[in-house]
Amino acid sequence: MADRILVINPNSNKQVTSAMDSALEPLRTADAPNIECVTIDEGPMGIESQNDVDRAAQLVIKQIERDQGQADAFVVACYSDPGLSGARKITYKPFFGSAETGLATSIMLGGRIGVISILAVAVERHWAYARSLNLDARIVADLPVDLNVAELANESTVTAQILEVGRSLRDQFAANVILLGCAGMARYRQVLEDELGLPVIDPTQAAVAAAVTALRLGYRAAR
Amino acid sequence: MADRILVINPNSNKQVTSAMDSALEPLRTADAPNIECVTIDEGPMGIESQNDVDRAAQLVIKQIERDQGQADAFVVACYSDPGLSGARKITYKPFFGSAETGLATSIMLGGRIGVISILAVAVERHWAYARSLNLDARIVADLPVDLNVAELANESTVTAQILEVGRSLRDQFAANVILLGCAGMARYRQVLEDELGLPVIDPTQAAVAAAVTALRLGYRAAR
Amino acid sequence: MADRILVINPNSNKQVTSAMDSALEPLRTADAPNIECVTIDEGPMGIESQNDVDRAAQLVIKQIERDQGQADAFVVACYSDPGLSGARKITYKPFFGSAETGLATSIMLGGRIGVISILAVAVERHWAYARSLNLDARIVADLPVDLNVAELANESTVTAQILEVGRSLRDQFAANVILLGCAGMARYRQVLEDELGLPVIDPTQAAVAAAVTALRLGYRAAR
Amino acid sequence: MADRILVINPNSNKQVTSAMDSALEPLRTADAPNIECVTIDEGPMGIESQNDVDRAAQLVIKQIERDQGQADAFVVACYSDPGLSGARKITYKPFFGSAETGLATSIMLGGRIGVISILAVAVERHWAYARSLNLDARIVADLPVDLNVAELANESTVTAQILEVGRSLRDQFAANVILLGCAGMARYRQVLEDELGLPVIDPTQAAVAAAVTALRLGYRAAR
Amino acid sequence: MADRILVINPNSNKQVTSAMDSALEPLRTADAPNIECVTIDEGPMGIESQNDVDRAAQLVIKQIERDQGQADAFVVACYSDPGLSGARKITYKPFFGSAETGLATSIMLGGRIGVISILAVAVERHWAYARSLNLDARIVADLPVDLNVAELANESTVTAQILEVGRSLRDQFAANVILLGCAGMARYRQVLEDELGLPVIDPTQAAVAAAVTALRLGYRAAR
Amino acid sequence: MADRILVINPNSNKQVTSAMDSALEPLRTADAPNIECVTIDEGPMGIESQNDVDRAAQLVIKQIERDQGQADAFVVACYSDPGLSGARKITYKPFFGSAETGLATSIMLGGRIGVISILAVAVERHWAYARSLNLDARIVADLPVDLNVAELANESTVTAQILEVGRSLRDQFAANVILLGCAGMARYRQVLEDELGLPVIDPTQAAVAAAVTALRLGYRAAR
Repeated sequence: MADRILVINPNSNKQVTSAMDSALEPLRTADAPNIECVTIDEGPMGIESQNDVDRAAQLVIKQIERDQGQADAFVVACYSDPGLSGARKITYKPFFGSAETGLATSIMLGGRIGVISILAVAVERHWAYARSLNLDARIVADLPVDLNVAELANESTVTAQILEVGRSLRDQFAANVILLGCAGMARYRQVLEDELGLPVIDPTQAAVAAAVTALRLGYRAAR
Repeated sequence: MADRILVINPNSNKQVTSAMDSALEPLRTADAPNIECVTIDEGPMGIESQNDVDRAAQLVIKQIERDQGQADAFVVACYSDPGLSGARKITYKPFFGSAETGLATSIMLGGRIGVISILAVAVERHWAYARSLNLDARIVADLPVDLNVAELANESTVTAQILEVGRSLRDQFAANVILLGCAGMARYRQVLEDELGLPVIDPTQAAVAAAVTALRLGYRAAR
Repeated sequence: MADRILVINPNSNKQVTSAMDSALEPLRTADAPNIECVTIDEGPMGIESQNDVDRAAQLVIKQIERDQGQADAFVVACYSDPGLSGARKITYKPFFGSAETGLATSIMLGGRIGVISILAVAVERHWAYARSLNLDARIVADLPVDLNVAELANESTVTAQILEVGRSLRDQFAANVILLGCAGMARYRQVLEDELGLPVIDPTQAAVAAAVTALRLGYRAAR
Repeated sequence: MADRILVINPNSNKQVTSAMDSALEPLRTADAPNIECVTIDEGPMGIESQNDVDRAAQLVIKQIERDQGQADAFVVACYSDPGLSGARKITYKPFFGSAETGLATSIMLGGRIGVISILAVAVERHWAYARSLNLDARIVADLPVDLNVAELANESTVTAQILEVGRSLRDQFAANVILLGCAGMARYRQVLEDELGLPVIDPTQAAVAAAVTALRLGYRAAR
Repeated sequence: MADRILVINPNSNKQVTSAMDSALEPLRTADAPNIECVTIDEGPMGIESQNDVDRAAQLVIKQIERDQGQADAFVVACYSDPGLSGARKITYKPFFGSAETGLATSIMLGGRIGVISILAVAVERHWAYARSLNLDARIVADLPVDLNVAELANESTVTAQILEVGRSLRDQFAANVILLGCAGMARYRQVLEDELGLPVIDPTQAAVAAAVTALRLGYRAAR
Repeated sequence: MADRILVINPNSNKQVTSAMDSALEPLRTADAPNIECVTIDEGPMGIESQNDVDRAAQLVIKQIERDQGQADAFVVACYSDPGLSGARKITYKPFFGSAETGLATSIMLGGRIGVISILAVAVERHWAYARSLNLDARIVADLPVDLNVAELANESTVTAQILEVGRSLRDQFAANVILLGCAGMARYRQVLEDELGLPVIDPTQAAVAAAVTALRLGYRAAR
């Protein structure tokens, strides 16, 4: 039977889950592991504050405690990696965080990383996390579009704003890789890439791709 | 027609090319890109000194100049990433370095990275490169087994030496991910993983897996 | 009416709350703010894993949401500062974390900081947090006694073990300030100070003293 | 008999001593240690250059050699901490520097620190000192008002200039804590706090509060 | 017989060799070592890309292999230090790199270093190299004039452009030492120094002066 | 008339002045600047504590104020660089510090620097200074021989102790350049170099050589 990757959306917004599910389509190749996305129904509608992150962490841990026998690798699909560190202590399955893997994937491309965040309040949290990973020196800037997770869905108005932030990262801060700082931005990856002429990393795609690789190559989980 | 990944072994040791080719087997899934390994015949027998790295860099560049139309992504299969930086300036195809990608993959696993090098002379070069990538703070130690690339092939005697270095990384330096600091060590990955109980990253496998992902997800090359 | 400082013990161990309450006695001077310690009854018995930290963070936030009108300053009495970052976004009252303030107090004394942790599993978590605060370079070592929060209470056997760790920090790592890496170690401060001849910082005492100062001098809360 | 804290103003400007004495009033609570400010009459009128710092250091040391039996804790009330390091080698009493303690206090408040300096010439000296303390990464900017210590006394004209610098630290550099980079700025703390809506730290107040805490909790001096 | 310093210009531009030869005149004092500049005829016309650096490295190594008996110290006269690291492994003679020595000389002058580069493409390469040397924190900015090595020779038009970059380094980035980031800029040192009022370091002069010192004081080569 | 370099020994030990004067002999070439060493008679017999450094700084400044018209470049011959920063503000002549120049010279040789200090008490001071220069990452260890400046003169007993420290730097810490952390160690440079097979830098020699270069090449003083 095929391996199974469980992708946990820790917010309760099923539209976000559905959008990331579509974005993962290119990774569902003939003999790839099954990739299944789940929504945590008790999660906040969007993970916007530190408080939301702390709450989501608990819910991710509970999910893992319950489902760790049901999958071969896990991904937490939120750019704050809620529960990542805690979950790694309770499961021997490889567990990938969107932010950690998104940053590492940007590094593979040789990049000076520009992060696009949704809210200004997230920026300082992102920096603190990047410092804790000792990866902050690779980030040239982290700029917010100042939208909440719900507002992100209005493609018609949002596209221009995201492109403006992307151009600022490229032109003022010399970023050569763009990292989407929110799991709900997947739908904007293509237009950013086309308009900016730079690689654009969706952290959930990156984390699921890492899980696929881990299963193919048989990586153990680090603890 | 399927995409094609060209894996360049910049040393002229065909045994090394053949071993890495075998190690890449798990990545050759049903609808994966073609993965082809080539040996640079004019390359040094092993890339052991800075001088070898500089020489190999030239040969990798020449190969890219000639073959860049023949492949969709490139990997340089040597832990010193010869030619990586230069090649990225002359091709728009994604180009992955073994060391850069090996380090990034170790980071995805959350790791305090322990590197196993072949020769003591390589250690300082590895540190200088890791500093240039701003990733040195993630490496807890880089220890040599003190063998040259040719000696690496004697599995019967080498296994014990490599295991001893791996144990030292785990027990004295608290490494929780082991990164093989040479493309010629692929054959020792499994035994290290089994004996140490830690994830062990072969940098060539990691770089080729990154190339597969880049093609699946359509990442542009960063320049 | 006097100002009031609420000291939140996020674990449910009332013995720990009672011990820290005693340790705060020297700060209860004539016209000082009232200092009140509370136990979070739903909290874990000890905060030992990242999972415990994430869970405690939620409980601290809830406490603040409910009680922020009841106090003029807050302290979270746990060396992992659960909920600190989140709570600062929801209250305009000064909020002090034991770890953050304990590190800052050690710095005031000019120190090369040696941290005594209870469990080995805490050490990496402490380092990640210190990195996120950009204060890791001031810590010379973080060594565990390998006891859980419950075992910490057996003074007769524990004293010798803690002293041994303290001596190692002083003699092998040249620490000149010792920082207790757990709110449950307050009772060992005096014997460590006497035997080591170094200043020893109890992070809860330090954080409550900072809250007293903040109220006396009228510091606003940073957000 | 009550403990005694000696606050040494190493410049010879008695107006500065008198202003800091007033600013310390909130720390003189019922059973607090006696807090006494002294002026070093041979000191420079303002400590503005490195030369002034070196000269002041000598005078502080002499004062300590003479008076160390007369007090239980010491504070050097100058943002260059003249004599701090030397004095700690000759007295076993806790000795607090304004800059070191001011920075540590700003850290306790969770801050991205913005420093207001008097003269442009001080800025590089401040950075070098912050680097020597390994705390420079916490400072987002250090901006001068370009006034000497004497000019600082003209409140009517100075207030607007200091506020402008404060706003620049908050709005352009995202500082969320303001640290006054001179002992002679105490009188401007309140207006800055009111106008900026941020915590503002007077380093002399912070250092004396730290000395009060050290005496209450019985901290040894680190050496 | 007098000692001999061999200064290797790894590009094939004899005008550059001739200009640096003139710039070294002040170091040819009565009893100084002989200072001889050679051009590598097979080198690129200018070392502008990473590819050029890699190619030059090979040629420098070959030169050393052939000529190491002919000189007592070596200098590679190119701001990318091609072959420096490799050459040090094959000769016991002191070997100085222009960039490494140029940076170190700027540090001796107490400097916040501003680098003037020729092409924008060089800037990222310079930073990577400075990071590998752990000296990047001393560089306040590296700004290109956007000229290639050939264009550098047109003094009439180039002077104004270089001065503008120099002023920007001094006024916007507070550089107090200017380091010329190309061996072909020697002729502009004087005018920059006169107009900016700052020390300006020509890296080839600096490296040859270091070689003179090494021979006078008998420094061994570090390996 | 020839240029003149004034080398200031800020301690009052004329034997030290005389020894450094001898060590500078190789720099007194045919048309070199005059190199004159002076003793500050009011200086401490040895500069061993921070207090000594602060006192010496004042005396160096006084000397410069009095003699700055008498010389074309200055060197302060003490590994704590007393007065360096202050003196640079009052003279437009190039001014070199032994420690700053000693470190920079070690960097020119490509080195992982091992420092030999006289007293244990100096080690922390050296690190703080190296951090303030942003050069601490280049130092692999700073080990004391535990002798005061007076004891340093007994060559027969001291040689073995210094060699042992040197071997420890080379063998345990992988230093490949040795930097003498005291102006009074010049006489041991040769034996260390011979026995260790590594370059050994006497900081006073290095600083005077830098002054010679500065005069030859006409470097302005950075301010």
